Amino acid sequence: MDHHEETTNLIAGGKVSGTEVYNGAGEHLGQIHDLMVDKRSGKVAYAVMSFGGFLGIGEKYHPLPWSTLAYDERQRGYIVNLTNDQLKGGPAYADDLEPEWDRDYESRVHGYYGVRPYWDQ
Amino acid sequence: MDHHEETTNLIAGGKVSGTEVYNGAGEHLGQIHDLMVDKRSGKVAYAVMSFGGFLGIGEKYHPLPWSTLAYDERQRGYIVNLTNDQLKGGPAYADDLEPEWDRDYESRVHGYYGVRPYWDQ
Repeated sequence: MDHHEETTNLIAGGKVSGTEVYNGAGEHLGQIHDLMVDKRSGKVAYAVMSFGGFLGIGEKYHPLPWSTLAYDERQRGYIVNLTNDQLKGGPAYADDLEPEWDRDYESRVHGYYGVRPYWDQ
Repeated sequence: MDHHEETTNLIAGGKVSGTEVYNGAGEHLGQIHDLMVDKRSGKVAYAVMSFGGFLGIGEKYHPLPWSTLAYDERQRGYIVNLTNDQLKGGPAYADDLEPEWDRDYESRVHGYYGVRPYWDQ
């Protein structure tokens, strides 16, 4: 463990990128690409997960509401209780087609995963 | 505005680094170096601010509890209501001497700035 960037409870934002994501069965789904932080509250709104593709080709970014992720100390990664098919069908964008993140889009993302929006918690 | 990384409400974690920090009088204090995120809650616990020094020499990292910062849309930066002297006297570390971030240290940081710990909110 690199105690300069990670402690038991804290992780440096710059180090979250690249953290692995698994499903409940321990299968590898993808990696965290970046976090989207609500500037005012300081709450992480989304973990943007890179998923699919091969050697970076065809890979898409899937914004996952933070509340869908749980950190697993043992696997040193995040767990989401989603199947590959659920992920595939979810809101996603290619690198050069990032959405505007307006409330319509954000509501759609939260609706898809059936969780309460972070601005309404 | 680069809408690929920043929206009105959201900012990509990877882009927070480098955001400027000002005091209430509009004076420039430093820059955000990185964020420390509570892995489980997804709350940003600290903005680690680089402060002091000259051309990177003698610069120190000051963990500021997130609740001490307010985002200012107009200045496109964070405001903390602290003087230079208050900052200078606060908990800080050099690049190669990062603390262990244990609860003693964290309590001291919050105590210095007189704010409630993020784990107790």
